[in-house]
Amino acid sequence: MAQFYSKKDLFFQLFENLNCLQLTQIPFFSEHNEETFKLILDAAGQIAEKNLYPLLTEMDRKEPQLVDGKIRIHPGMKAIVKKFGTDGWINATFPYKDGGQQLPWTIHIASGFILQAANYSASVFPFLTTGAANLIRTFGSRELNDTFTPKMYSGEWQGTMALTEPDAGSSLSDLSTAAFPTNIPGVFKIKGQKIYISCGDHDACENVIHLMLARIQGAPAGTKGISLFVVPQKRVPDHHPNDVLTQGLYHKMGYKGAPIAHLMMGSEDGCEGFLVGEANQGLKYMFQMTNEARLGVGMNAVAISTAAYLSSLAYAKERPQGRKINEKDITKPQVPIIEHADVKRMLLFQKSVTEGSLALLLYCAMLSDQATHETDEAGKQGIENLLDLLTPIAKSYPSEMGVQSTSAAVQVLGGAGYTTDFPVEQYYREARIHPIHEGTTGIHGLDILGRKLLINNGLGWELLKEEIEKSIDELTNYPNLNDVRLSFENQYNKVKNTSKIVIGKSAAGAEIFLADATLVLEMFGLLTIGWMWIRQAKVSSEKLETPDADRNFYQGKIETARYFVEYELVKITSLSERLSSRLYPTITMKKEWFG
Amino acid sequence: MAQFYSKKDLFFQLFENLNCLQLTQIPFFSEHNEETFKLILDAAGQIAEKNLYPLLTEMDRKEPQLVDGKIRIHPGMKAIVKKFGTDGWINATFPYKDGGQQLPWTIHIASGFILQAANYSASVFPFLTTGAANLIRTFGSRELNDTFTPKMYSGEWQGTMALTEPDAGSSLSDLSTAAFPTNIPGVFKIKGQKIYISCGDHDACENVIHLMLARIQGAPAGTKGISLFVVPQKRVPDHHPNDVLTQGLYHKMGYKGAPIAHLMMGSEDGCEGFLVGEANQGLKYMFQMTNEARLGVGMNAVAISTAAYLSSLAYAKERPQGRKINEKDITKPQVPIIEHADVKRMLLFQKSVTEGSLALLLYCAMLSDQATHETDEAGKQGIENLLDLLTPIAKSYPSEMGVQSTSAAVQVLGGAGYTTDFPVEQYYREARIHPIHEGTTGIHGLDILGRKLLINNGLGWELLKEEIEKSIDELTNYPNLNDVRLSFENQYNKVKNTSKIVIGKSAAGAEIFLADATLVLEMFGLLTIGWMWIRQAKVSSEKLETPDADRNFYQGKIETARYFVEYELVKITSLSERLSSRLYPTITMKKEWFG
Repeated sequence: MAQFYSKKDLFFQLFENLNCLQLTQIPFFSEHNEETFKLILDAAGQIAEKNLYPLLTEMDRKEPQLVDGKIRIHPGMKAIVKKFGTDGWINATFPYKDGGQQLPWTIHIASGFILQAANYSASVFPFLTTGAANLIRTFGSRELNDTFTPKMYSGEWQGTMALTEPDAGSSLSDLSTAAFPTNIPGVFKIKGQKIYISCGDHDACENVIHLMLARIQGAPAGTKGISLFVVPQKRVPDHHPNDVLTQGLYHKMGYKGAPIAHLMMGSEDGCEGFLVGEANQGLKYMFQMTNEARLGVGMNAVAISTAAYLSSLAYAKERPQGRKINEKDITKPQVPIIEHADVKRMLLFQKSVTEGSLALLLYCAMLSDQATHETDEAGKQGIENLLDLLTPIAKSYPSEMGVQSTSAAVQVLGGAGYTTDFPVEQYYREARIHPIHEGTTGIHGLDILGRKLLINNGLGWELLKEEIEKSIDELTNYPNLNDVRLSFENQYNKVKNTSKIVIGKSAAGAEIFLADATLVLEMFGLLTIGWMWIRQAKVSSEKLETPDADRNFYQGKIETARYFVEYELVKITSLSERLSSRLYPTITMKKEWFG
Repeated sequence: MAQFYSKKDLFFQLFENLNCLQLTQIPFFSEHNEETFKLILDAAGQIAEKNLYPLLTEMDRKEPQLVDGKIRIHPGMKAIVKKFGTDGWINATFPYKDGGQQLPWTIHIASGFILQAANYSASVFPFLTTGAANLIRTFGSRELNDTFTPKMYSGEWQGTMALTEPDAGSSLSDLSTAAFPTNIPGVFKIKGQKIYISCGDHDACENVIHLMLARIQGAPAGTKGISLFVVPQKRVPDHHPNDVLTQGLYHKMGYKGAPIAHLMMGSEDGCEGFLVGEANQGLKYMFQMTNEARLGVGMNAVAISTAAYLSSLAYAKERPQGRKINEKDITKPQVPIIEHADVKRMLLFQKSVTEGSLALLLYCAMLSDQATHETDEAGKQGIENLLDLLTPIAKSYPSEMGVQSTSAAVQVLGGAGYTTDFPVEQYYREARIHPIHEGTTGIHGLDILGRKLLINNGLGWELLKEEIEKSIDELTNYPNLNDVRLSFENQYNKVKNTSKIVIGKSAAGAEIFLADATLVLEMFGLLTIGWMWIRQAKVSSEKLETPDADRNFYQGKIETARYFVEYELVKITSLSERLSSRLYPTITMKKEWFG
């Protein structure tokens, strides 16, 4: 069995680097402990190995098909979807009263990481159902809950998030799916189209429950007039069709095992939808799930990149090719390619990107758990603001760098990596979706610069600086990390100065202020992942002082921190130079000039 | 018909930026003129549009298959391969006496660019035949020539380059395919395996002529004992099988239309090979074709990236989404996404990478034509040294950046770009091969730092500096380019200083000296493409002063030069910072530490 995630690293991240057991101090999680956490993670590891990984390649090769208006997926998914339900994965984080296990989201997303690393396409089915069920559970009436959620929890029904429309991709204010009131309060006739709906139709579940954004007749234009509806594919309880047609199935570069549908509602005026919560509050409800959804996508990207990294690492350790650079005797045997500095560079790049990103995502997950259960209002706001600032980073850095990281995995294998004989080419194709969905990288750039750095007078950024400075201070106790600390501090100071310059540009109007938002996001990505690496280096240095420490593991962490600072963090210098410029070719370039 | 290349830009590059008509001053090319060049380029455009582009998607979806030991390719290729022969493309650059047209290689590779942009897989068939025939023509006996080349020129027989072996990918010194002398001089029995042989077997030609590297029994170990053979798939003239078995067909992420074979020679002791030229000179012969082969791969990468760029540009001009950043009125219609600064940034990135790379490749092609026909020995050596230095850059920059550029094309289309409804996802998959074949980027890093920057006391680098400084001086006449000139000069000085530091590290031994060779290559790539942009900006500024100038085109060139300097060239600052460091985590990291 190929290794697609590192249990050692995941446990290091959770229990040593992050000290996730702090969460058990929170009353909601008080029945949990190290043992229950590890049992759950091991259970995820078993499903991943036994059920998901074996279908990884097959689900890529045998794509879903649209036959007579119904999407047929890989037959192996039926048992998997059901198992996620019966084993309790879908509502694991929900309260005991809703049949859940009150599992911290941190442990849930860590389990998700394992499943995603094994088979990304297969992992999205329960993830979407959880999100949809959670919206109904949190904002829906008791009746909606009783009608829809039990069979979603059991894995019998699929849940989806139906947002995107043909004429409103990233621009939600333009969405036009309409909801017409009926005689029954809370029941509407839905009319419109949705595109790119993941798991929007398939034959592994009895019913599909869409959580759909639509505009009630007469509602205000823009985002203020959007409401949230439950729109089942089949009516409940009679299972008659609800006039939701599967108009099309998208064929894609990767992520092929999950069916992505084009849906048409109400073409025969027979589509019933049920209002969730209050009218015109749809986007507000949806956005309460947004941080978790975005962190979820970041985690998908890390999971795929991790599997690709470990695959290329295993190859590099075994594949003999060439000799050490200073070995001139060609009668000596060839050495494994991991001996070559440039191959090590590509492996260190992947290790630093994937483990750094995993550290950030788990850190954010813990902030999310803490924010949810924090009772002190000021404390809660602080945690939320810090999390709000980190979320676009934790979504985008792993996604953008996942593309480059999986590309490095392909490169390590050389010609072999380009063939379907090894899984890295599939990982490379699958990684490419993440900078696009759940908000493109450009959208997250606008989010961090136009909103997150500014709200509450920049409270999130102030708190991040405090945390980073705390970490820098802690490093001073480890002279072996002096070079790492000094380089990090140097780049940190550049980010502080550059941020001031960039924020100062807001006086020049929105166009100039936001022109390079994506680069600002990139700069903060480097800083934040660098911070994650100095934290890991510090914990590893500490652990190295204990007897029986796994010295190879911790030395590797420290050297990877050094790699990150030397090769990646240093990119801040150029970004800072660009962001300080007063020339804006992306604004001055006219569309007619492209030719 | 979608636009897959810009004739306007190609003609600008050749006739305005490069002034390729200079070549007609060389006696060998004296019967050519602007008209013949343009006729040939237009003919390539027509084949590309009528024959190649229509099969682009289909050849990707209907992959070659190995059936009963024979590879079957898309049936449409048969007519195309034949047409390349009958229309004279295969031997176009060869002397009139060999049936060629004495076409400058510059115009040939520019025609190739058009074909590759239309359908990369289809374009490699004649490209390989040309390379193989050229080896026989240049180094083979009259008899070998008469036996094999005519049917290669006519497109009836396929040519290949058979180098790679299972245990010797990038390490040619380890190749083990054996050649045993027979009673007939020049005829050998061949025994061994070759992998990743492009067009190594298919049913669109009657025969496949392999130009194969093998080691004659008793030859020295390493690269000094390698000889070059012609190994036909079928014997000539009787067409009996020559014991070359198609052992396997590789399935790949992209570039699917071209069959890549695993070949087994002599499993029944019946494989005949014919020595080309002298024994043990195989690598020397092969390497005389190396610059052209490497520039050819660079051009493949540019061609694919260009098609992706133009595809995303057309989409961005038509797809309405969102409003200008300072437009708050949501009742206003949506604007085409090209109006958004971040989308323009992604388009400028692609335009700057692709047009800058095309400029460099054509510049190198002209150096190659000049070197071949230069009669003054010192002049010839200078041109060759400059070309030798630029070749790893011109192979690797377009290849590495082609991956990022096609990725940007996908991103411009968003979710649509990830689906097979648009060709950008195919371009993204096809671009990924180029950093791997014809020498990985890592290999080219070692080449530029370990050899090209040093040979002849750094003559190539001295000449490049002279040329760059000439271009900087010329810019001083254009005050509208002051900002571009100053930024370029600043980065150029950094490269000069950093090169000294890096070359100085050779005193510390090969391992440290070469550890960051790939980053040195990257730095030179940025500098060289930046240089190509200041050249284009200067010519465009000049043209803008003429009446009736296509102002949009030239303004676009100038603004793209500004983009490149502001967003890409600036990356030299960070590279220089890294390359000046005295820490080497890629050396100090131990393989046991990866976990």
